[in-house]
Amino acid sequence: MPDPENPRAHDPVFELHAGGKMEIASTVELTGPDELSMAYTPGVARVCEAIAEDPSLADDYTWVSNTVAVVTDGSAVLGLGDIGPSAAMPVMEGKAVLFKQFGGVDAIPICLDTKDTDEIVETVVRLAPSFGGINLEDISAPRCFEIEQRLKDRLSIPVFHDDQHGTAVVVLAALENALKLTGREIGEARVVISGAGAAGVAVSRILLAAGVRDLAVVDRRGVLNSARGDLTPVKLSLAQDTADTTGREGRLVDALDGADVFIGVSGGSVPEEAVARMAADSIIFGLANPNPEVHPDIANRHARVVATGRSDYPNQINNVLAFPGIFRGAFDVRATSITEGMKLAAADALAALVRDDLSEDCIIPSPFDKRVATAVATAVADAARRDRVARR
Amino acid sequence: MPDPENPRAHDPVFELHAGGKMEIASTVELTGPDELSMAYTPGVARVCEAIAEDPSLADDYTWVSNTVAVVTDGSAVLGLGDIGPSAAMPVMEGKAVLFKQFGGVDAIPICLDTKDTDEIVETVVRLAPSFGGINLEDISAPRCFEIEQRLKDRLSIPVFHDDQHGTAVVVLAALENALKLTGREIGEARVVISGAGAAGVAVSRILLAAGVRDLAVVDRRGVLNSARGDLTPVKLSLAQDTADTTGREGRLVDALDGADVFIGVSGGSVPEEAVARMAADSIIFGLANPNPEVHPDIANRHARVVATGRSDYPNQINNVLAFPGIFRGAFDVRATSITEGMKLAAADALAALVRDDLSEDCIIPSPFDKRVATAVATAVADAARRDRVARR
Repeated sequence: MPDPENPRAHDPVFELHAGGKMEIASTVELTGPDELSMAYTPGVARVCEAIAEDPSLADDYTWVSNTVAVVTDGSAVLGLGDIGPSAAMPVMEGKAVLFKQFGGVDAIPICLDTKDTDEIVETVVRLAPSFGGINLEDISAPRCFEIEQRLKDRLSIPVFHDDQHGTAVVVLAALENALKLTGREIGEARVVISGAGAAGVAVSRILLAAGVRDLAVVDRRGVLNSARGDLTPVKLSLAQDTADTTGREGRLVDALDGADVFIGVSGGSVPEEAVARMAADSIIFGLANPNPEVHPDIANRHARVVATGRSDYPNQINNVLAFPGIFRGAFDVRATSITEGMKLAAADALAALVRDDLSEDCIIPSPFDKRVATAVATAVADAARRDRVARR
Repeated sequence: MPDPENPRAHDPVFELHAGGKMEIASTVELTGPDELSMAYTPGVARVCEAIAEDPSLADDYTWVSNTVAVVTDGSAVLGLGDIGPSAAMPVMEGKAVLFKQFGGVDAIPICLDTKDTDEIVETVVRLAPSFGGINLEDISAPRCFEIEQRLKDRLSIPVFHDDQHGTAVVVLAALENALKLTGREIGEARVVISGAGAAGVAVSRILLAAGVRDLAVVDRRGVLNSARGDLTPVKLSLAQDTADTTGREGRLVDALDGADVFIGVSGGSVPEEAVARMAADSIIFGLANPNPEVHPDIANRHARVVATGRSDYPNQINNVLAFPGIFRGAFDVRATSITEGMKLAAADALAALVRDDLSEDCIIPSPFDKRVATAVATAVADAARRDRVARR
């Protein structure tokens, strides 16, 4: 029964969140003075001295090499927007729990009380000795691009903006299988992406790297191309690599006319008439949550393969398929960064997990498929070695 | 057998430290899509929205209110000095493990890659939404004083420099029992403290607050008093509250002549002749590790009560007696700061745990006495309410 004094009482979601979702655990037992004098003073001093002499030993004798800071400023949390650092914490804790459960990675939520790009960069650089990797989360575009790039330039540990690259990896994996199912080569597919924020830019970039040649990226004002005078540097660069090479222009409905693939990462709603004018056997990924850009019921009337971000429809594009395995693989070889090759390898590994069961309703594994993180981690570690960013 | 290739192989201290000493654990189970959709999207969004509307709910529905950041710049680690943030990590992890084991507090080591006072302050302020408290650790004097004060001014969560206040609380507790044992009132005791760094200043301040009236604080150049022209602001203020009121001056040996209590928090060595000139039934706390300012064998020839920082002699002055219970108590009532009253209450509670067993070899409980953290926490929580810094 709802309690008028406390609308959260007896609410299973709030009950589950009471006291938070995570804790610190010791991996050593301190049962008496002997253990205490090894794990703490005076014994610990020898470990400190060894690391002071050879800093690489911190990877062996501290938890740092298995930890990732999940860093946000709370400016673009889920679909809720700029709700600030404190209100972002439940999402960051959830992320940390998923990192541990699926990847065995120790993740620590860091919610920052600043939205200034310089301050975020400086703060994370100062924190960096405490962590083996940085997962940026729910930081709004276009600041997220500059923050990630500057941190990558300054740090020699993996820096990964999951809203960008986690999404991109899972989208590519799903698209690879959808193309296979519909008998298309990636280089022949006409792809339209709605949304040029964090996810849209990263999905565009990974699709280009994977071989997509006809890609139109659309923001609220239409297809990104250099003829437009209103583009940010990130969008201009993307325009040059996409519509500028094909001459596509106009609005979303124009771009969709005859397109093979629609990927929505923008929110909003695409009119059914526009969806209806896509090519036969089209592929529609409407990833906005909870309301996909094309509702699955509508999409299924016109497309052959439909995916969403929702767990209650088939083909859920869920970042948890990517980030735990990507960091697991990077940490396993102590990678100094996460390269494009590692992301592509992660997508290929994910796609390859769907074989005989490939169908319109199964283009991507379930988040609870226990093979996922290991397959992704192995592929990522191999790619790190190939790309010469592995330290072991 | 020592391995010439790896001197750390088969070394029990390094074996214990392999992979670090801590990990993240989930307090929720994510066994299927239903749990996932409650702990993460889409369910988590409702918790975020509730906190955005009422920020105090972050205390109830995230782990923040039970977490403390253990923050260091690695500038004054144990007796090792400025070994930097990476080499400091094993100590910070050890501290975190003790926080959890003894106080049930979730502590996260934060080792900062800066020694600039402004940068440390700004960084911690930006991190603050992620934590329920800040434990400063192994930051060198005099920067530690300014950093702590500025953070206390800017944050409404407990900020506690353990090297100062943890040490001070345990020293006061031990001294209370030593004075009881030797039949002295605290206001009548003549006390000499060697060392005016982090620990020396804080011990001096808590002893003054507890009623010590004749206190001489000695640094390398002698007794702190205003006649000296070389004092930092912190030392000058301390001089005005100590030797200026009694007219004491000169060097350590002069101050020790007839003194009842010597407390060493400076390192170095006090000549036996000076120790011999202390009052009858004197009290000697030589707290430098591993080499006390007065070796216990020498101290025992002249003093009635002897304490050290070492676990292999009686009366170990160990901060672990204080910090877990102090934060536990502060967190239990969601205190907005740690007041002088809370520290004094912690010391009194610690001292009171030694009753019938009070003796020259037992003036302070063992760190493994299971009553300690609860007794300290209860006293601290009560004091927080008295001092009106409790939020519940």
